[in-house]
Amino acid sequence: MSDPFVIVGGDAAGLSAASKHRRENPDRDVIVFEKGRWVSYAACGMPYYVKGEVESLLDMLSLTPEEAAERGIDLRREHEVVAVDTEAKAVTVEGPDGRFEQPYGDLLVATGARAVSEPIEGSRLDGAFTIHSMDSTAAVRAFLTDPADPGFAEPDVPYVDTELVESYLEREPPETVAIVGGGYVGVEMAEAFAAHELDVHLFQRPDRLLEPFGEAVGETVAEALRDEGVSLHLGEEVDRIESDDEGRVAGVSSTGGTVDAELVVVGIGVRPNSGLVANTPVELGESGAIATDRYGETSVDGVYAAGDCAQMLHTVTGSPAWVPLGLTANRAGRAVGQTVAGDPTPVGGIAGTAVVKAFDVECGRTGLVDHERVREAGFDPVSETVTAGSRSGYYPGAAETTVTLTADRGTGKLLGGSIVGTDRAAIRIDTVATALENGMTVAELERTDLAYAPPFSPVWDPVLVAAKVLNGTLED
Amino acid sequence: MSDPFVIVGGDAAGLSAASKHRRENPDRDVIVFEKGRWVSYAACGMPYYVKGEVESLLDMLSLTPEEAAERGIDLRREHEVVAVDTEAKAVTVEGPDGRFEQPYGDLLVATGARAVSEPIEGSRLDGAFTIHSMDSTAAVRAFLTDPADPGFAEPDVPYVDTELVESYLEREPPETVAIVGGGYVGVEMAEAFAAHELDVHLFQRPDRLLEPFGEAVGETVAEALRDEGVSLHLGEEVDRIESDDEGRVAGVSSTGGTVDAELVVVGIGVRPNSGLVANTPVELGESGAIATDRYGETSVDGVYAAGDCAQMLHTVTGSPAWVPLGLTANRAGRAVGQTVAGDPTPVGGIAGTAVVKAFDVECGRTGLVDHERVREAGFDPVSETVTAGSRSGYYPGAAETTVTLTADRGTGKLLGGSIVGTDRAAIRIDTVATALENGMTVAELERTDLAYAPPFSPVWDPVLVAAKVLNGTLED
Repeated sequence: MSDPFVIVGGDAAGLSAASKHRRENPDRDVIVFEKGRWVSYAACGMPYYVKGEVESLLDMLSLTPEEAAERGIDLRREHEVVAVDTEAKAVTVEGPDGRFEQPYGDLLVATGARAVSEPIEGSRLDGAFTIHSMDSTAAVRAFLTDPADPGFAEPDVPYVDTELVESYLEREPPETVAIVGGGYVGVEMAEAFAAHELDVHLFQRPDRLLEPFGEAVGETVAEALRDEGVSLHLGEEVDRIESDDEGRVAGVSSTGGTVDAELVVVGIGVRPNSGLVANTPVELGESGAIATDRYGETSVDGVYAAGDCAQMLHTVTGSPAWVPLGLTANRAGRAVGQTVAGDPTPVGGIAGTAVVKAFDVECGRTGLVDHERVREAGFDPVSETVTAGSRSGYYPGAAETTVTLTADRGTGKLLGGSIVGTDRAAIRIDTVATALENGMTVAELERTDLAYAPPFSPVWDPVLVAAKVLNGTLED
Repeated sequence: MSDPFVIVGGDAAGLSAASKHRRENPDRDVIVFEKGRWVSYAACGMPYYVKGEVESLLDMLSLTPEEAAERGIDLRREHEVVAVDTEAKAVTVEGPDGRFEQPYGDLLVATGARAVSEPIEGSRLDGAFTIHSMDSTAAVRAFLTDPADPGFAEPDVPYVDTELVESYLEREPPETVAIVGGGYVGVEMAEAFAAHELDVHLFQRPDRLLEPFGEAVGETVAEALRDEGVSLHLGEEVDRIESDDEGRVAGVSSTGGTVDAELVVVGIGVRPNSGLVANTPVELGESGAIATDRYGETSVDGVYAAGDCAQMLHTVTGSPAWVPLGLTANRAGRAVGQTVAGDPTPVGGIAGTAVVKAFDVECGRTGLVDHERVREAGFDPVSETVTAGSRSGYYPGAAETTVTLTADRGTGKLLGGSIVGTDRAAIRIDTVATALENGMTVAELERTDLAYAPPFSPVWDPVLVAAKVLNGTLED
């Protein structure tokens, strides 16, 4: 019998690979080493857990350790893989019972990404958090909970860091919170904190929120956040998180001044956890993530990487790109599980399709939006932004939907787009994403037979209106 | 100066062509002959007008005669084109001032379609309607309006058939209504009548509603209609509409028995208005609609057809198809206007993408869904139907979304799909439509980088879940 399929990391990519592999090849052992206690959790749900819309951390588990066991996956939590020997085809593991070597037949590195907070002085203070791990998220919600409220039961969740959660649960909830960073996490956390009726300050170094979504989205979201009472500090760089005498968060200092706050969330980005293979022949890409081919295989035969630690090929440019997102991790993991089982399956391209909610505003983006990035990729960018109705103008509930499409001037090829609006806006980005997947030109998109009925769309869907206008510009 | 661009029909296709042509070529005369008083109205809005969600008929005009004049379009209402002479390049017109010949340089036939009701005996009775013209729609709403209600002002609308509307306005509203036909019109009218708290009976000869949407949609919609108190008579064929002594509608007789009703709507389909060219060299297709090429040109040079009177090429089969829908009419008209102006522009394919609302249920379909039609087109059909969440399972408001995808067994090519659900379901059909436009395989669709965030979609969008399952079946 061949050596087992060993997977490092028990989140989306790792457990998708394990599950798929077990289904395809039930006879081969699959061992998953996860250094923490949590597995297969939905990081994207964390802001809604803090908001209170998701009741328990357990609701966000897509696969429990028990379910993994039922699938025949040998899942070992609190086991950290500390070294990989690609010559010997073995990993070194540190577990509760000490260190050991585990031989592998195939290896998948699915170690994910980590939230970056170090550039901000004071990011380790009591009361400063990133929203990337289940434990810190549980701690934030505990902090927001009145000590007298008996309804909060997270300390009983079997995987949680009980000590951490309880330490915040016994404190008075904050009245003012600061968020450092205006990306997904920042915007979603602003909504979450506002639901608790806190005084919310959001600091963003660029002068625009949600930068990868482009200008129109950023402006609409900023307006929405201000309307909901969030204090925006755009163009302000946070130097440090201030501390009180007890080493607790007391506020933040930025290039715009100082704001008092008892809780700070830092959401300034993530980095790939690729350190495990740093001293092996497994090559990293320019992004620092692990380079992979279209099957998720690294530069070393039989060693794969998937999820937030891996580069993939970009749908539009065809070049390697690192865009850590949930669907891609799941899909790439699943494909690797299938490939390793003997059925070569491409992991698919990554277009960077993303959607985010900011109170009632829905935002979407896909492909190349930013003109600088478009030029770096060798294209000549032309964009148009249009605002159209979400429904027929005479039908109740029609709302403004703003679409930006970007194309290459020479070829008319669609390169990317973004969308923002309140009525079914976000999901329409899937039309653009599917167009990118197929390398459509703007003219081809304009001719696509999309759906129309008064409650759902005007005759010309907002995406088609944008294509029509951009195509006009391209023809001039 | 060349002879004018003459357009027969002043609705979506005709006025889109006229507008586009005037923009592209402001020096050439464009004459539009419309036999009625109404132009450029949104037929798809009519059920919502009857329901009361659209206040006035005028709200449904996308272009008024005055706006057409501002665009330099010579729009002549109440002018019926009664003959075409393609040799002499002239049309014969009957207008308020008599009959005359109008020479043309290029001709667009955009005569639309008509509602069929003749097969049902009694369909011309007082109280029996089709929902296809503005006047009959206004009459239905007038009929539903209490004579004492001073709020209903449609008799003042300048284009309306005042006599007809007033005759219904002065009558006591009906208490029971019957709908013959369970397609779009039937389902939308059931919702409209239910909003007036009428006793609603819907008769459908097949045993399924919304046949072109497939089984899963039909069943869900039937359930929704029953839940809202609509009496469904599925599998019952209506023989005739019964009359009282005064020649007014008294009920309907079907293969299942007789139901009393004071108002009947017949929505059993439409037929193309292609009679104008019947005795000319302009060829009709098998459907009875006018055959056109990819530029909307007929078999006669310089004679075009667009909209509900014309066949187009089907996106999936590449063969001629007649699927009268709003977007296609607008787009084809616009493309013809551009082509005639000297810039050859394809009218685009027709995938039959359609969406419809039934109370809170949203439905969508595109391409080939029915297995018999798939076989006729030379494919070997395989379908899978899945039910997935509309959002992450832990996020509030997640609702069941049922997706059916159909593919060709031999090639794995996606052929069509349908969708039904209550939360942002309909608009997701655009992903499938865009996939069809590009001839994607199911495996390629499965790898498409669609959007994910808990409020909008599970990690695997319902469309991707369906692709995943269908792809699994194809691989077996």
